[in-house]
Amino acid sequence: MKNNFKLFLLIAFISFFEIAFSQRIAERLGYPKDAKLLIIHADDLGVSHSENMASIKAMEEGSVNSASIMVPCPWFPEIANYAKHHTDMDFGLHLTLTSEWKYYKWGPSYKSDSMASYINEQGYFYDNVSEVVSKANPDFLKAELSTQIRTALNAGIDVTHLDAHMGAVMATEGFFETYIEVGHEFKVPVLLSKGMPALKSSKIRAMLTDKNVILDAIISASPNDFEEGMEGYYSTTINELEPGITCLLIHTAYDNQEMQGVTIDHPNWGAAWRQADFDFFTSKKCADLLKENEIVLITWREIRDKITRSQD
Amino acid sequence: MKNNFKLFLLIAFISFFEIAFSQRIAERLGYPKDAKLLIIHADDLGVSHSENMASIKAMEEGSVNSASIMVPCPWFPEIANYAKHHTDMDFGLHLTLTSEWKYYKWGPSYKSDSMASYINEQGYFYDNVSEVVSKANPDFLKAELSTQIRTALNAGIDVTHLDAHMGAVMATEGFFETYIEVGHEFKVPVLLSKGMPALKSSKIRAMLTDKNVILDAIISASPNDFEEGMEGYYSTTINELEPGITCLLIHTAYDNQEMQGVTIDHPNWGAAWRQADFDFFTSKKCADLLKENEIVLITWREIRDKITRSQD
Repeated sequence: MKNNFKLFLLIAFISFFEIAFSQRIAERLGYPKDAKLLIIHADDLGVSHSENMASIKAMEEGSVNSASIMVPCPWFPEIANYAKHHTDMDFGLHLTLTSEWKYYKWGPSYKSDSMASYINEQGYFYDNVSEVVSKANPDFLKAELSTQIRTALNAGIDVTHLDAHMGAVMATEGFFETYIEVGHEFKVPVLLSKGMPALKSSKIRAMLTDKNVILDAIISASPNDFEEGMEGYYSTTINELEPGITCLLIHTAYDNQEMQGVTIDHPNWGAAWRQADFDFFTSKKCADLLKENEIVLITWREIRDKITRSQD
Repeated sequence: MKNNFKLFLLIAFISFFEIAFSQRIAERLGYPKDAKLLIIHADDLGVSHSENMASIKAMEEGSVNSASIMVPCPWFPEIANYAKHHTDMDFGLHLTLTSEWKYYKWGPSYKSDSMASYINEQGYFYDNVSEVVSKANPDFLKAELSTQIRTALNAGIDVTHLDAHMGAVMATEGFFETYIEVGHEFKVPVLLSKGMPALKSSKIRAMLTDKNVILDAIISASPNDFEEGMEGYYSTTINELEPGITCLLIHTAYDNQEMQGVTIDHPNWGAAWRQADFDFFTSKKCADLLKENEIVLITWREIRDKITRSQD
């Protein structure tokens, strides 16, 4: 019983600490402590021309206000050129260690013999995270991630944040450490949220400073949500958004020949799914719901400049 | 005057030799010595989904009867999978050392530090042949070409021939030697034609055996032909085709969003050009003209199996 009570106290303390921490972040960003702060974030930019074109339109004309770019992908130069000429917009990097589609492929940005354990027999990244974990030599992870970041900076992208394609870069404690390390080295926030199991590790927690920001929640549609209809799912998500900082991860592309080819035999996160995301987040309904619910859209650039790079 | 007469005799001898050689090739393939033999050949397969889909259709339903695949390109796995399941069709490799489009890129198939001189600061192949020639270390050319060929064979492609994207692999005498060497090693014919300046080199000529086939002509539309209208150009080309073996190089893709993105700022060999090629070579007019002119379509597989791999 005594032990249980201690555990109860510990959990209560952590919860209190986390609520206070989250409210403090809202205030450090300059918002009321109970504000509903939301990043509407498009993943996978660079993967295809379709994804680039739709995501740019969803940012220019829709409610999407942040996105992350996959440096190793074939269409990276297109979105890099756009980002270079639109430095007011919020672009981070979707750090990439996998090439998951059936007939359309890419591999490491770090062109070196050292990356041999990161590629399959055909010369591409593996198509799944478990193979990355079992085969990739973690000693070379930092070289790959640093190359992706430097390539983006050299291309003129004002990198506002880092996150992880398919979570590969977060898949082991060792990978996670490297993920946090590169964030520190390049002074950009990395996507972290309270629900991440890795944040239970004392080693990981010991790496974090008050320059790191742990979001309250990451929300993303599941295959079931897609089946039941994206408009209903996203409407409910917005109507029920809690105070705190939330990142809503979406994927915007056109359901055209190219995207159907890319996502062939993979209806989940496929071309129709991405078109549904595009349709909702460029709709008047979405804009109206955000307004009605008094949701404040914030960017990773604000987090980077006000917290990660703060001189306090 | 004496020297001029000797030169005249030499040219007359070479011309006689070449005509005889060409007629002998027609006969070795099993055709009359004055037949009009034509390969209608689509280049650049693998470069995009659009190029793959259009080229497959132009081969299945049109008059295109041969094509070559770019192994380092992102959509290689798609066309490789098709070729693997259609081993009666004629697929070779478009050996690739350049990545010429503006916003859509690829790099070497041989993933090694050795390839550093083949890639630019962004990690891709150079976009032009002269930079390949001035910067690429020829010592590693064979490793790259062998990797492209082995990757294709491992993917299940029955490689019928080799040719050269943008002529990069033919751009120096040293490169040309390697090109012929890999053809010999893998026992596949390489595209050679009488007009090629490299064939004037005694060193190159000394490498050739009676397993090599030198075509009479390679024909390809120029920017001027595209401007004046492809239908007229190709109709005249077919109507005026000479006896002997000719390879007509074309590029078939759909003029859709993807292909417009790939070829942006590059009207020559652009999306509309490729659509025009597709339109003509899937037309009834094209099929009728080939018939009227008694043109015999031959494949690289015939050349490979009857000559390059002949046991004589």
